[in-house]
Amino acid sequence: MNGAEALLRTVRAAGVDLCLANPGTTELPLVAALDAVPGVRAVLGLFEGVCTGAADGYGRMTGRPALTLLHLGPGLANGLANLHNARRAQTPVLNLVGDHATWHVASDPPLASDVESLARPMSGFVRTSASAKSLASDAADALAAAVGPPGAVATLVVPVDAQAAAADGPAPAPRPRAARMPDDAAVAAARAALESGAPVLLLLGGSALAERGLRAASALAARTGARLATDSFYARLERGQGVPAVERLPYFPEQAVSWLSGFAHLVLAGTRAPVAFFGTEGVPSQLAPPSCEVHALAGPGEDAAGALDALARQLAAPSVAVPPRERPAPPRGEGALDPASLGQALTALQPEGAIVVDEAATSGLPYALAAPAAPPHSVLALTGGSIGQGLPCAVGAALACPERRVVAFQADGSGLYTLQALWTLAREGLDATVVVCANRAYRILRVELGRAGIAEPGPAALALTDLGGPALDWTALSRGFGVPASRAETPAALSDALARSFATPGPSLIEAILP
Amino acid sequence: MNGAEALLRTVRAAGVDLCLANPGTTELPLVAALDAVPGVRAVLGLFEGVCTGAADGYGRMTGRPALTLLHLGPGLANGLANLHNARRAQTPVLNLVGDHATWHVASDPPLASDVESLARPMSGFVRTSASAKSLASDAADALAAAVGPPGAVATLVVPVDAQAAAADGPAPAPRPRAARMPDDAAVAAARAALESGAPVLLLLGGSALAERGLRAASALAARTGARLATDSFYARLERGQGVPAVERLPYFPEQAVSWLSGFAHLVLAGTRAPVAFFGTEGVPSQLAPPSCEVHALAGPGEDAAGALDALARQLAAPSVAVPPRERPAPPRGEGALDPASLGQALTALQPEGAIVVDEAATSGLPYALAAPAAPPHSVLALTGGSIGQGLPCAVGAALACPERRVVAFQADGSGLYTLQALWTLAREGLDATVVVCANRAYRILRVELGRAGIAEPGPAALALTDLGGPALDWTALSRGFGVPASRAETPAALSDALARSFATPGPSLIEAILP
Repeated sequence: MNGAEALLRTVRAAGVDLCLANPGTTELPLVAALDAVPGVRAVLGLFEGVCTGAADGYGRMTGRPALTLLHLGPGLANGLANLHNARRAQTPVLNLVGDHATWHVASDPPLASDVESLARPMSGFVRTSASAKSLASDAADALAAAVGPPGAVATLVVPVDAQAAAADGPAPAPRPRAARMPDDAAVAAARAALESGAPVLLLLGGSALAERGLRAASALAARTGARLATDSFYARLERGQGVPAVERLPYFPEQAVSWLSGFAHLVLAGTRAPVAFFGTEGVPSQLAPPSCEVHALAGPGEDAAGALDALARQLAAPSVAVPPRERPAPPRGEGALDPASLGQALTALQPEGAIVVDEAATSGLPYALAAPAAPPHSVLALTGGSIGQGLPCAVGAALACPERRVVAFQADGSGLYTLQALWTLAREGLDATVVVCANRAYRILRVELGRAGIAEPGPAALALTDLGGPALDWTALSRGFGVPASRAETPAALSDALARSFATPGPSLIEAILP
Repeated sequence: MNGAEALLRTVRAAGVDLCLANPGTTELPLVAALDAVPGVRAVLGLFEGVCTGAADGYGRMTGRPALTLLHLGPGLANGLANLHNARRAQTPVLNLVGDHATWHVASDPPLASDVESLARPMSGFVRTSASAKSLASDAADALAAAVGPPGAVATLVVPVDAQAAAADGPAPAPRPRAARMPDDAAVAAARAALESGAPVLLLLGGSALAERGLRAASALAARTGARLATDSFYARLERGQGVPAVERLPYFPEQAVSWLSGFAHLVLAGTRAPVAFFGTEGVPSQLAPPSCEVHALAGPGEDAAGALDALARQLAAPSVAVPPRERPAPPRGEGALDPASLGQALTALQPEGAIVVDEAATSGLPYALAAPAAPPHSVLALTGGSIGQGLPCAVGAALACPERRVVAFQADGSGLYTLQALWTLAREGLDATVVVCANRAYRILRVELGRAGIAEPGPAALALTDLGGPALDWTALSRGFGVPASRAETPAALSDALARSFATPGPSLIEAILP
């Protein structure tokens, strides 16, 4: 058994069953091992950001790490942007990055680079295996770091000679660890805040946004008058009919500061005190007012849902029935589409149990407001702000949950960074509906130019924020990658296209033309 | 004048006239400065690897650095693969990477990461500007590092508050430095080797592959019997009728070792002693035999062409006329295309002064052998082995030389990493002919599997090296980005399509279907 096979058997025994790969010459022993070791599905991405973003989506839906298999420093580099999002989502991911044979590195061959320096900013664990003998135990260590809790991106650099040489067999799989319950003092402080009578915000993240956490939080809210919110971006949220709704912190910092200004206490469950996405002159980085007392009920690696549950029991907060919400009808208008009709159509038509990967950016707000009236579904958001996450994440979510429909709700500018994901949707026959919000601009930058006081951008600023000239044809791009596609210019056409896509197995893309 | 404008005026005064940008919120003051400072053309890439690869192509053709403008750590990360190629080509490039406001970093906002750690492996210069006051002089230092000689990738991290705050005005532009002539001892040693009567290989890179270097080298070869070769991959080579031809080192190391085995002396002009691209068990990293004496006539930052010229004068080696070579006719066959007919068609039809960006990989060899019979042209190759360089590099070459036709001779697997470059070709109306060699596989990996002893790859190995299922439709992808496209399945159809493309201003793409 060579090092590659020993590595793969080690992680397989620990439950790893997916490898998102874009390999090259230095990863061929691992490629061969994927045939020798049963149970690890190999899925090809045409670009590394597809692999890493898919690993993020897979990890968010299963709680388990997928492998990525990447080709030296440049291959890893291509995957870093989506690893950045995975790191911020605390998603478990195990990157395997091939490298030159150990004896060849000193000659500085053309593809050599400092892989660890590249990996470190986006990884909680980085190691280079020294030899075939250590590959399996290195992989076990990396896996332990990846699963946490909290989940983390772990990067193991695997020289090709270590993959190919004889090994001693697999290493013991790491023992899974459960998330810790927070200590009594943290629970007591949160309880005191909730019972203080002063205005309290319960800010939820991580497992607090799963159904159990949301039910406990809403019971606490009903019992104490606390308000519930999420960060602007979260790793995964359960939403829809029967699921308690939470508000979302505004994205722009001055709005968030205003929104948070009345709270005397901030209780954190599965997240941290909110920070401005970008710094804005005259607006503080920390968005909660200085007078607000911050209580960390459950921090990273702690069981946020369990802590909320325990607190609800302590306070004898009975669970609260969620009243039915009126679901809108599919829009039938023949005028122009806009974000509101887009949100209405999705809410009206999305099937039960959908997984919505939301990278719709400026086109997404009306849908987010309407979607609690849709059937229960999961939402995955852009935790790290590194755009180009949506389509790859949709690939991973669909691989994780083949029985659920994935909806990639996708801004056009962001989608172009990693559009190669469409091909993997087609190759694997994944049940995904891609809705491209085609406003043909980096709209957020137009907004930000205005906020920066540039009321009348010059030709360079306009050119650098405009995606028309030539207009992109997403239906052609989609068909080029093997995904059937259509264009919708009216609410009625969009409703028809969505209904058709949801009723048809496999992927399809709808280009929704927005003003 | 704010920091952004002071920076831009500094580099403009030093001759910088192009900014390849994919900006975000933290780069908006620089975006606005592009409107305030005349003379720096702003070109949008839809993905950062397009910007960096274009900067590489532009730098190879002009010898001058373009700016890139990238969005924090993840934006830089997306551009690193092509910066890796630029670094190996010693191309001057000046990256400007926006970052959070200095006062905001301590809060660790979602998009924060260690930008310098990401930049360092691919950069010869890395600095983070501390304030608006230092931005202009930091840019001058970065520019000096970029232009060398030798050329280098310089990365300047520019916090948004440093861009926006008041500055003292531009800094003095760095003084251009000429490449040094090598010292007399190096010239004397090379001369002694050339006059030794033993077999000598003159290995050429850098400016030795420009016309002046090639003429001097061929005079030396005629006078002394030395053979002339290039590395397998070079930054830029002049080739075609009237230009002295050079051989190319084989790519596979065992072939290169055999090819080099007879030489007693290796004289290096503008390159280093050849190293195996990948390590192969049983084949040395250093490809020249241990008995071969290596003489560095001109190393990095030295004037290789000038040194060859001086040596030719010392040896009274008269310049050699290059006999005309028989140019093939365009193939008119109606059978299947193959790399040979592809190479014949290109050689027969490419216009005078073309710039050929060669990322054709396994489909490219017959063309490389035939092309000395084409009209004079420049060739840009994949120096760093990081694939996805071809289309972006073609963008940059076309921006550098609007009067010349660019031919992107492109393998399909490699082209998919950065296909967004097609849109910039369309938007800027660049005279580029993209020829996609559609063999629908990572063919080189199939070859490498065989070399690794995996004669019958299993289903995973086959799936990870196959690009069929579904077959990519490059004509649809191209039209989706606004570039007219056609498909050629026969030599006759390819000849017609090439002739049409070369006669039509602006870009077009030809998908050449290969077995």
